[in-house]
Amino acid sequence: MEHPEQKKIPYSLNSRKVAEATREWLHKRGVTIPEIAELVMMLQKKYYPGLTMEECIDNVEKVLRKREVQNAVLTGIQLDLLAEQGKLISPLQEMIENDEGLYGVDEILAFSIVNVYGSIGFTNYGYVDKLKPGVLERLNDKSLGPVHTFLDDIVGAIASAASSRIAHRKQSELEEALGEKPVSDDIV
Amino acid sequence: MEHPEQKKIPYSLNSRKVAEATREWLHKRGVTIPEIAELVMMLQKKYYPGLTMEECIDNVEKVLRKREVQNAVLTGIQLDLLAEQGKLISPLQEMIENDEGLYGVDEILAFSIVNVYGSIGFTNYGYVDKLKPGVLERLNDKSLGPVHTFLDDIVGAIASAASSRIAHRKQSELEEALGEKPVSDDIV
Amino acid sequence: MEHPEQKKIPYSLNSRKVAEATREWLHKRGVTIPEIAELVMMLQKKYYPGLTMEECIDNVEKVLRKREVQNAVLTGIQLDLLAEQGKLISPLQEMIENDEGLYGVDEILAFSIVNVYGSIGFTNYGYVDKLKPGVLERLNDKSLGPVHTFLDDIVGAIASAASSRIAHRKQSELEEALGEKPVSDDIV
Amino acid sequence: MEHPEQKKIPYSLNSRKVAEATREWLHKRGVTIPEIAELVMMLQKKYYPGLTMEECIDNVEKVLRKREVQNAVLTGIQLDLLAEQGKLISPLQEMIENDEGLYGVDEILAFSIVNVYGSIGFTNYGYVDKLKPGVLERLNDKSLGPVHTFLDDIVGAIASAASSRIAHRKQSELEEALGEKPVSDDIV
Repeated sequence: MEHPEQKKIPYSLNSRKVAEATREWLHKRGVTIPEIAELVMMLQKKYYPGLTMEECIDNVEKVLRKREVQNAVLTGIQLDLLAEQGKLISPLQEMIENDEGLYGVDEILAFSIVNVYGSIGFTNYGYVDKLKPGVLERLNDKSLGPVHTFLDDIVGAIASAASSRIAHRKQSELEEALGEKPVSDDIV
Repeated sequence: MEHPEQKKIPYSLNSRKVAEATREWLHKRGVTIPEIAELVMMLQKKYYPGLTMEECIDNVEKVLRKREVQNAVLTGIQLDLLAEQGKLISPLQEMIENDEGLYGVDEILAFSIVNVYGSIGFTNYGYVDKLKPGVLERLNDKSLGPVHTFLDDIVGAIASAASSRIAHRKQSELEEALGEKPVSDDIV
Repeated sequence: MEHPEQKKIPYSLNSRKVAEATREWLHKRGVTIPEIAELVMMLQKKYYPGLTMEECIDNVEKVLRKREVQNAVLTGIQLDLLAEQGKLISPLQEMIENDEGLYGVDEILAFSIVNVYGSIGFTNYGYVDKLKPGVLERLNDKSLGPVHTFLDDIVGAIASAASSRIAHRKQSELEEALGEKPVSDDIV
Repeated sequence: MEHPEQKKIPYSLNSRKVAEATREWLHKRGVTIPEIAELVMMLQKKYYPGLTMEECIDNVEKVLRKREVQNAVLTGIQLDLLAEQGKLISPLQEMIENDEGLYGVDEILAFSIVNVYGSIGFTNYGYVDKLKPGVLERLNDKSLGPVHTFLDDIVGAIASAASSRIAHRKQSELEEALGEKPVSDDIV
């Protein structure tokens, strides 16, 4: 779809804009970083009693810097928005608008987020997605106006990825405390 | 987003409509079943010299009957359509319109199709997606008008899934020919 | 590793043997079909109050007929067995023997099972894997002798896949009851 | 399987040992880092004509520092080794020994490696796995003694992951050259 005469500036990916749009759209859709961090705390405090909200927030922030995560967030919110405006083709419109249980593309996008810190996040994702604690309960409330078919799964996935990140990090800290030289900058 | 007063008919998934919309939209976007079947033939004739185009077509048809496949096809085509019309939020619009290499949601959707017949399809998918033979070359031609960022991956994935289905089927036929009683209706 | 002179019978996959070995090994490792069916019932009775144990058992049986599932079950049990016997290379031995939290290959194998009936099973898997109800509690009890690092995830995954299968099936039954002609033999 | 009286040192994950074992076992199984780097060069030189072997080697090294990758490498090589020694349960033994086409656990493990740098690696993996260039041809040669059913897929996956890493990195370099401030330490 390039029309060289119209398009003075050729396309070039601007990673900063993608990162900023991700944060803006989460905000516009009513999701705050501390709310996601609370899910992380709920998932991880059992394993790390000293875990602070500050650490949880920091880990959510780190997850949101990943390109794979940003792509999934923007695509999912876009589909929610269009469903809300009634602009999707039928029967995709009806399936997304009604959060059809047999439509699993929302789970697929969520999983691409969970995967970013490896397979250990699978369990946490399913758990929060089933229990819908905190912010997920609100996002999943069908009596409210907005469509959040994708967003509720995405927020649960970000929390799960942040939990995985914490698990990897805490292991590094433990090994360093035991006198091991850190072997890798594995997790960023 | 339910407004009971406006909405006389409560939502209920109609699987026939989803299946029909999938076929219609593939057709509207210029992809025919025989073209996908040709990709299957290209991938599988080496292993099954007697494979006919009729069998390839039949296997593509069977893949298209799977709900998971239909959901991915409709979602992908929807995103292509909206990118073509310039209706996506920025910078998602620019990334999909320009088939950005670091945007991998198209691959993620394609993979949910490949997965339908198991992990043996992974290789075929990557192969056709890289070589872009037949219909994939046309879909991937950026000088033509339409945006097919999702569709080219999806078509390759359908061909890969059909190839996996053939591999499972041929094994059953072989075992039956060897006098084994079929043990499963594993693959449909 | 073929030594033609020694090996009179060339290799040929025998699907019946793979299916039988899967069931035998589940049995040898102390897992019964009704126990898995109880997990399914726990996951699905909320959505289908009339669901019977007979249906749950039947759905577990169908999941176990899938080749992808059989491969994952046999591979996972094999790794558990070898870890139990202390026969793995170090440090894989220690990681599997101790069900290391940062070793996620068990989750990866489990996910290949969940995937067999599509993305809608992701949530159920995480949920049972976290709560460890019924048979999963026993499998996960580290004070008992056997190593079940893989098996507990695999059993949860089989239950999740069976739950997905039920969800697809119940939709077909509903649509048929509404007078819709069935459109697909989608799920087997 | 803990016997406290025998086991003086309680289990604690040692990440350095896992990392070292990964490199040692790749070496013992006859795979060198430069050979993997050559696959990366083959996959990426078309897109980055100035790409050096040094960069390819560095990217392979970085991939090998990831825990998810190490777990998959060790597990896959372990299964190859045991198949080579004839120590697996039947019919898993026969399937792995003969690189059965319908056994896809090798692809599943490989995919957990590819996923480490996101979905953009899917295509490269399938491509090298189909064409079997360089080291993959040797690993895949069934006339030689060793069983490499897992290792050939794993090596292709490492090369694909390293290719994805390069693609992400090159984008960062490009944006920095255009005067953009780097926004993320996204890829490590």
